[in-house]
Amino acid sequence: MEVRRELIELETEGDTDIVDFTAALQALVAESGIRVGQATAMVVGSTAALSTLEYEPGLVGHDVAAALEKLAPAAGRYAHEETWHDDNGHSHVRACLVGPSLALPIVDGTVPLGTWQQVVLLDFDTRPRQRTIVVTLVGD
Amino acid sequence: MEVRRELIELETEGDTDIVDFTAALQALVAESGIRVGQATAMVVGSTAALSTLEYEPGLVGHDVAAALEKLAPAAGRYAHEETWHDDNGHSHVRACLVGPSLALPIVDGTVPLGTWQQVVLLDFDTRPRQRTIVVTLVGD
Amino acid sequence: MEVRRELIELETEGDTDIVDFTAALQALVAESGIRVGQATAMVVGSTAALSTLEYEPGLVGHDVAAALEKLAPAAGRYAHEETWHDDNGHSHVRACLVGPSLALPIVDGTVPLGTWQQVVLLDFDTRPRQRTIVVTLVGD
Repeated sequence: MEVRRELIELETEGDTDIVDFTAALQALVAESGIRVGQATAMVVGSTAALSTLEYEPGLVGHDVAAALEKLAPAAGRYAHEETWHDDNGHSHVRACLVGPSLALPIVDGTVPLGTWQQVVLLDFDTRPRQRTIVVTLVGD
Repeated sequence: MEVRRELIELETEGDTDIVDFTAALQALVAESGIRVGQATAMVVGSTAALSTLEYEPGLVGHDVAAALEKLAPAAGRYAHEETWHDDNGHSHVRACLVGPSLALPIVDGTVPLGTWQQVVLLDFDTRPRQRTIVVTLVGD
Repeated sequence: MEVRRELIELETEGDTDIVDFTAALQALVAESGIRVGQATAMVVGSTAALSTLEYEPGLVGHDVAAALEKLAPAAGRYAHEETWHDDNGHSHVRACLVGPSLALPIVDGTVPLGTWQQVVLLDFDTRPRQRTIVVTLVGD
């Protein structure tokens, strides 16, 4: 049984910038030598989230953000902002509802994603950020 | 320490069809012989998601879909659809926000769900689909 | 390789009461002696969820609930309630969409959260509840 810890570092633009980190994750899985097991990925920070998405310009540049704008509009009124005099109340709410982490199976030395399914970071903050995704891998 | 990989295959109707796969998952956990550990389940593809839900007709047939219809309406305008000339932009958005995977504890040889808590696949695509859920199990 | 199972018991007020259980979780990780691995946490029951959030009064007491009120309003009409003659249809919908579980990496004997990132239980039920979070830990 093998256990590994790894970091993936990404630069984002903020404002629901969605970044595909599938290649970096699959490379870590391949380098670990683990054939069957589990990968856990978590973004550090409370204004970003992880999920999977077909990484194409319509969804990435418009559709996901448009849906979240209904749920937690960027220009909405947030108690968070009144207290802290900042502008990212919607970023915190969106990140909480999408979720900070992913549990992913490893089979045959890879995460068995669909062809049109990429692993993505969604950065909801209101400015460019350097993000760290912590990944641990467990398996044989 | 044991590591197992398994598949659960399901047929769905699409259009936010919600399918209970608790029995299939608990059977895999029981067959593995693992008493304490973790199960990771991920649906392959970018228009479906996993979660837990009380599996009763009101929630399954109406309430969950009604909430998601507000967030990402089926008849909405999606950049995804303009590019690809298809009709499932809302399916991708819903799947990304609910999330593709579940991390589940195994205790006493079972996933300790509540009585009214079932493990479900939510298929948001616009047509019937055959779905594969990849499950890996790690533990003692 | 170590495997541990633990319980965290919490009392909540319901009505989107958000409870920070970071300290309890980090204590379990520390006591396990695991330096590198994975923690899986799942709330038992279908009207609560787990995520991470900056635990400050504006987000906790107002902003997250306000966003979910748009998606699944407490006073909305739910098929669940017509069948079961209860009042928590919105609780089930919110819990399903946020999700019941978290997969968290363990690195250097801790879950490497951000400074302003806490692990939280969101209780959407309409009355005070005693909640159980099941945690399993795997690693070296």
